[in-house]
Amino acid sequence: MPRAAVVGAGMTKFSVHDTPMQELFDEAAFAALDDAGVSPGDIDALYFGNAMGGSTENETHLGPKIAAHVGMSGIPVQRFEDACATSSNAFKNAVEAVEAGVHDVVLVGGTERCTPKTGKDTPEMTRIFGSASHRQYEQPTGLTFPAVFALLTKRHMHVHGTTEEQLAHVAVKNHGNGALNPNAHFGKEVTVEEALNSPVIADPFRLMDCCPFSDGASAVVVVSEDAAASYDAPVDVSGVGHATDVIPIGDKAEIGVTQAARDAAAQAYEQADTTADAMEFAEVHDCFTGAEILAIEALGLVEDGQGGVAAEEGRTARDGDIPINPSGGLKAKGHPIGATGTAQIVELTEQIRGDAGERQLGGVERGVAHNLGGDSATTVVSVMEARQ
Amino acid sequence: MPRAAVVGAGMTKFSVHDTPMQELFDEAAFAALDDAGVSPGDIDALYFGNAMGGSTENETHLGPKIAAHVGMSGIPVQRFEDACATSSNAFKNAVEAVEAGVHDVVLVGGTERCTPKTGKDTPEMTRIFGSASHRQYEQPTGLTFPAVFALLTKRHMHVHGTTEEQLAHVAVKNHGNGALNPNAHFGKEVTVEEALNSPVIADPFRLMDCCPFSDGASAVVVVSEDAAASYDAPVDVSGVGHATDVIPIGDKAEIGVTQAARDAAAQAYEQADTTADAMEFAEVHDCFTGAEILAIEALGLVEDGQGGVAAEEGRTARDGDIPINPSGGLKAKGHPIGATGTAQIVELTEQIRGDAGERQLGGVERGVAHNLGGDSATTVVSVMEARQ
Repeated sequence: MPRAAVVGAGMTKFSVHDTPMQELFDEAAFAALDDAGVSPGDIDALYFGNAMGGSTENETHLGPKIAAHVGMSGIPVQRFEDACATSSNAFKNAVEAVEAGVHDVVLVGGTERCTPKTGKDTPEMTRIFGSASHRQYEQPTGLTFPAVFALLTKRHMHVHGTTEEQLAHVAVKNHGNGALNPNAHFGKEVTVEEALNSPVIADPFRLMDCCPFSDGASAVVVVSEDAAASYDAPVDVSGVGHATDVIPIGDKAEIGVTQAARDAAAQAYEQADTTADAMEFAEVHDCFTGAEILAIEALGLVEDGQGGVAAEEGRTARDGDIPINPSGGLKAKGHPIGATGTAQIVELTEQIRGDAGERQLGGVERGVAHNLGGDSATTVVSVMEARQ
Repeated sequence: MPRAAVVGAGMTKFSVHDTPMQELFDEAAFAALDDAGVSPGDIDALYFGNAMGGSTENETHLGPKIAAHVGMSGIPVQRFEDACATSSNAFKNAVEAVEAGVHDVVLVGGTERCTPKTGKDTPEMTRIFGSASHRQYEQPTGLTFPAVFALLTKRHMHVHGTTEEQLAHVAVKNHGNGALNPNAHFGKEVTVEEALNSPVIADPFRLMDCCPFSDGASAVVVVSEDAAASYDAPVDVSGVGHATDVIPIGDKAEIGVTQAARDAAAQAYEQADTTADAMEFAEVHDCFTGAEILAIEALGLVEDGQGGVAAEEGRTARDGDIPINPSGGLKAKGHPIGATGTAQIVELTEQIRGDAGERQLGGVERGVAHNLGGDSATTVVSVMEARQ
């Protein structure tokens, strides 16, 4: 039996935005409410995600501010922060709440501004992003996130022979998908040659291996499995797994393996009474091209060591046997941290409904989302399915 | 029937600490685990609160770092931030989770460093605290939190005739209670005269009306009502209410009323099948003396307009008819933001067990905690009772 259902989904374009965070969230929230056919007064609780607003814009306690802004004052609100897995963790807690009967109709989402519109330039934002790494054991070494994922990817290259060309194929695919997505930060395609000729950021990553800093918001309306039948287009949430891995990365048993993703995926598949083989597509946390390769292996969508090969051979393309990141992923759709997790849920919802426009995959009924926070530590994996 | 039970409680001294946040949390967490008679491997999930770590110490994604530090890597962790109501909101979500059977044994708590040990001086910390007020409508006016609560209190004085002497009596009482609490930041008594002669901070508040910036941590072990019987000294959680009020304060219907506290209290009492009259003591959010007066009225512990009178007449003293803040409250025990909510739960647990040492009230079996975040916006109210 499904644990809950998504009955409304909305997001802003991920881009560079002048508008304050609550106005960004309004746009996503009202799109989700309209999609569900509910009004602010129908919402029982807000599960809200924002990762870095305190540091970027001196803005905390955003949950009640946003509830007031969208006409929901009074309801219980909680803000989640789990680095880049922020709003998927809000989603997980919301699913538990409607499943338990704590609430009937909840709004879940996140918002973030990460571009110079915050008043913070790229070096300063890099430091702020770095707050998600270990304060005592990693930050003093200068290990920012491109370097964290570069280390993980280097290990994967060493163990499995993954190549820079394979990384480039991930970028090319996701940019191609993003070009079909009107909400994507980057709407242009790139070639393998362009990717391989872009400047090195943190070896083996070049500029084209890295996702951008984006501004944006996303939101979904979640209801209980029982209540879902009274909505127009519910998509079932059949499993949500959540696990963490040890931090700092020097303490991980094997840095190329992303154990938390494996644990979270196992939980999600078990809840959904399904297996990786049954997944028809996935949205995964490709903050860097190497991260997508690690993710699809951890989710069991390809064999260990085959993540890079799968990209190179087109298996993860829109017309491949397991399309990955049809939205464009973080790489091309963009990465407004606190909005990323629920944006993946928006994409799963739209794809499974057949509402994904130009980027619609053919007849998909079941997909999985993978959202990762910090040093490959917090991971939330969600399985969604067409209602039977 | 109780919703859940607290079976272990621990906290650090609230003070000025040199130790990093995760080490502070370790001390509270291990005290709570030892008290419950469980080990890190018995914990299914961590519900963690920290309010300002990103801004104060460039430290986010603290949940998994702390889980790793206390030997709990792998388990699901979520960080909550709801300004000063941060860890009580974590507690509320944890109670829901064990009640629903999502988890069996959870650790809930919070940690914060707010003193110059963070590297931030008092003016800078005041700006960071101010991030919980409205970014567009309040921060630009220079309205920091002493001023927010001064406005609320001024209104109460205007409507009800509350006096500065009555505010001073709140400070005197809480300092007296704090002097009995070895974990309190301030261990000294003050007199009404000293309070009234202390310098004005934000009229009507003088220095002695204001709680300090503190460093500290607190933690509790929460289990389901069914599981509680197998622990040595469970204290039942019979109700947890949670509501928000509109922000900015200019939009509130009546600023001296703290509507969210009234709504949250009504929920908590209804869940517990009890009334305000049945409460034998309370821990309330006295970030400023005026806030205690508003809180005890909102909780229904005294009549509206009688909050100040109650302090002056000794009704809220240890030997009064409704003792308030036997721990010393935020005013004397201290206020490490993210740790404050669960520290109130620690105090309720110890008082109801009869384990509160020198500050033990006589034979109390039922109490209520009130934790407030932001511009009188997020409020969580928890009712706890001795197991029958």
